Amino acid sequence: MTTTVPAGDRSAAPAADASPARRVRVALDLLGGDAGPAVVADAAVALAADPVAGAGVELLLVGPADVAEPLLAERGAADLFTLVPAASAVAMDEDPVAAVRHRRDCSIRIATGLVRSGAADAAVSIGHTGASLAAAAFGLDRLPGLVRPAVAVLVPTPRGELVLLDAGGTPDATPDLLAQFALAGAAYARARGVDAPRVGLLTIGTEAGKGDALRRGAAELLATLPVDFVGGVEGGVLARGGEVDVVVTDGFTGNVVLKAVEGAVDASLERAAAVYADPGPARDVQQQLRAGAHAGALLLGVDGVCVVGHGASTADEVAAYVALARATVADDVLGRTARHLAELVERRRSSVPVLGPAGSGA
Amino acid sequence: MTTTVPAGDRSAAPAADASPARRVRVALDLLGGDAGPAVVADAAVALAADPVAGAGVELLLVGPADVAEPLLAERGAADLFTLVPAASAVAMDEDPVAAVRHRRDCSIRIATGLVRSGAADAAVSIGHTGASLAAAAFGLDRLPGLVRPAVAVLVPTPRGELVLLDAGGTPDATPDLLAQFALAGAAYARARGVDAPRVGLLTIGTEAGKGDALRRGAAELLATLPVDFVGGVEGGVLARGGEVDVVVTDGFTGNVVLKAVEGAVDASLERAAAVYADPGPARDVQQQLRAGAHAGALLLGVDGVCVVGHGASTADEVAAYVALARATVADDVLGRTARHLAELVERRRSSVPVLGPAGSGA
Repeated sequence: MTTTVPAGDRSAAPAADASPARRVRVALDLLGGDAGPAVVADAAVALAADPVAGAGVELLLVGPADVAEPLLAERGAADLFTLVPAASAVAMDEDPVAAVRHRRDCSIRIATGLVRSGAADAAVSIGHTGASLAAAAFGLDRLPGLVRPAVAVLVPTPRGELVLLDAGGTPDATPDLLAQFALAGAAYARARGVDAPRVGLLTIGTEAGKGDALRRGAAELLATLPVDFVGGVEGGVLARGGEVDVVVTDGFTGNVVLKAVEGAVDASLERAAAVYADPGPARDVQQQLRAGAHAGALLLGVDGVCVVGHGASTADEVAAYVALARATVADDVLGRTARHLAELVERRRSSVPVLGPAGSGA
Repeated sequence: MTTTVPAGDRSAAPAADASPARRVRVALDLLGGDAGPAVVADAAVALAADPVAGAGVELLLVGPADVAEPLLAERGAADLFTLVPAASAVAMDEDPVAAVRHRRDCSIRIATGLVRSGAADAAVSIGHTGASLAAAAFGLDRLPGLVRPAVAVLVPTPRGELVLLDAGGTPDATPDLLAQFALAGAAYARARGVDAPRVGLLTIGTEAGKGDALRRGAAELLATLPVDFVGGVEGGVLARGGEVDVVVTDGFTGNVVLKAVEGAVDASLERAAAVYADPGPARDVQQQLRAGAHAGALLLGVDGVCVVGHGASTADEVAAYVALARATVADDVLGRTARHLAELVERRRSSVPVLGPAGSGA
């Protein structure tokens, strides 16, 4: 029999334990993927059987029992996981904010609630990204200095990892929001081991004054921040790497460009595989870049580890998202990000000239 | 000795000739590339020596004589080309509109003037794209229904060619401008041989209502046009192909995404080359995709063939831009585009309900 814990009931959760050997409890949303819950169940079962990737992870599967139980039974995995009941997913054509607000029992709200209550250390979902954002924004505390969480993706390059944000959370951004994302991205990169992160603004042409109105406004603002702002960077930096550690953009551009890069990697390596007698090595590179390039995105800006992936994710990709969640918790990346961010926000505030109250008689 | 023709003096131009065997006269801007005029001179000399790519092309090199003559002499090509004198390029950090307006002797204005006067059939430049656009917009007549020319790129995919526009001309677009680009792109695709072009709007998520404010507005408008509008398409379509023939976007997103795809193709094939004992075939694919993916962009919306390429173009790429210009002229692609576009604009106009004059006494 699988055990179930009531969502949001902290007393039912395993006792918190600060020892580094403690298993990281990940609430995994069964619902919302394009191909249905089987992909997520496959990932869970594969992780449970994997002595490396599965080590140190305890999965809490979030979804309807009548969906989860047959899926696990078919896989001979009925007893492997804790099940947390939830009624439904937020559909791709729903208004995510309204759905999360009004449906207490939707799976992403339950999963996020487990993080809030401490019953889980992290939540992972391949459902509607807007719903994950809404659930995180409503259900979790905010990190300092951010009016909205950003979708922060780690992009592997031959010259090291980049943080790209926002990758789809806020399609219509403002210069000030991009400035907030720049600080949050720099704090996240520092928490991941980059001492003095270089921050670039994704734009067209690197000369000052290039880009659209949003970029021209943001470039002026980013130059005033207490981060190493290197100026504009072009789209090629995402695959080439080396110039910056953080790439700041709006959620529309970030999402379009990530999908385009993913498609280009796939198509190029298909072509390469076709021109060799042995396509194996090219396919291996394709697999590595596919699993690496989109190993989930952290919702950066809330005080809880929430990882999201695209709806068309494979089971391997879902397992990679769980691995990101586990590492983020185990290394206290979010705690360190929050501390760095608080420091940057304070430095930004103290560097802005404070105007005295305007005299009413002037 | 090289011969020179005064720019804009139609009487000095070779007589117009409608026979299909006539050589296409391409005004090639020597200036404005990131690496200086030597790259353009290399391309010109290589084309002159190439019995296939160079056949049917007559190059008019536009630039200062004291720059052009030594470059050609070094390459043993002093007598191969017509030189057209010009004073300078528009620098990347100049305001292109002001520069083109005030400097009659800048090379892109001279090159465009040769097209205007009939002394050349097409102009090709790897200088400041904004300056090429400004020179075309000021110097040439407009095609019907377009308030601004778009930068239209042909993107090769495994399932056929796509027209992507705008790829950098207008970073800040409006829904109505995207509608104009949709009609122009459809007309161009039809002129290039696609009977009923499918038009997609580059966005995030394909559900209605997804995307930013510009995309939500544009999607409503595009659905009313006399074209086969299939709705939203994601970034992956640019490499994968197959869903649409025309991808409509603003110049900011288009440019960022093209640079990102180019970078991803390069990086992926570098990785593939490294895992095989013989990197040759992977490098060949890289060369093909590099030359193909950015074989110049047509300035779509003016009554003259103007092809632009990025400032970092190689000599091979410049030669590919000349080939695009030649084919566009030889196949009368622009003439057919103009006729299809006029028809679409007329159909759009006649489908819009006409309101009677408002009564002043109401």
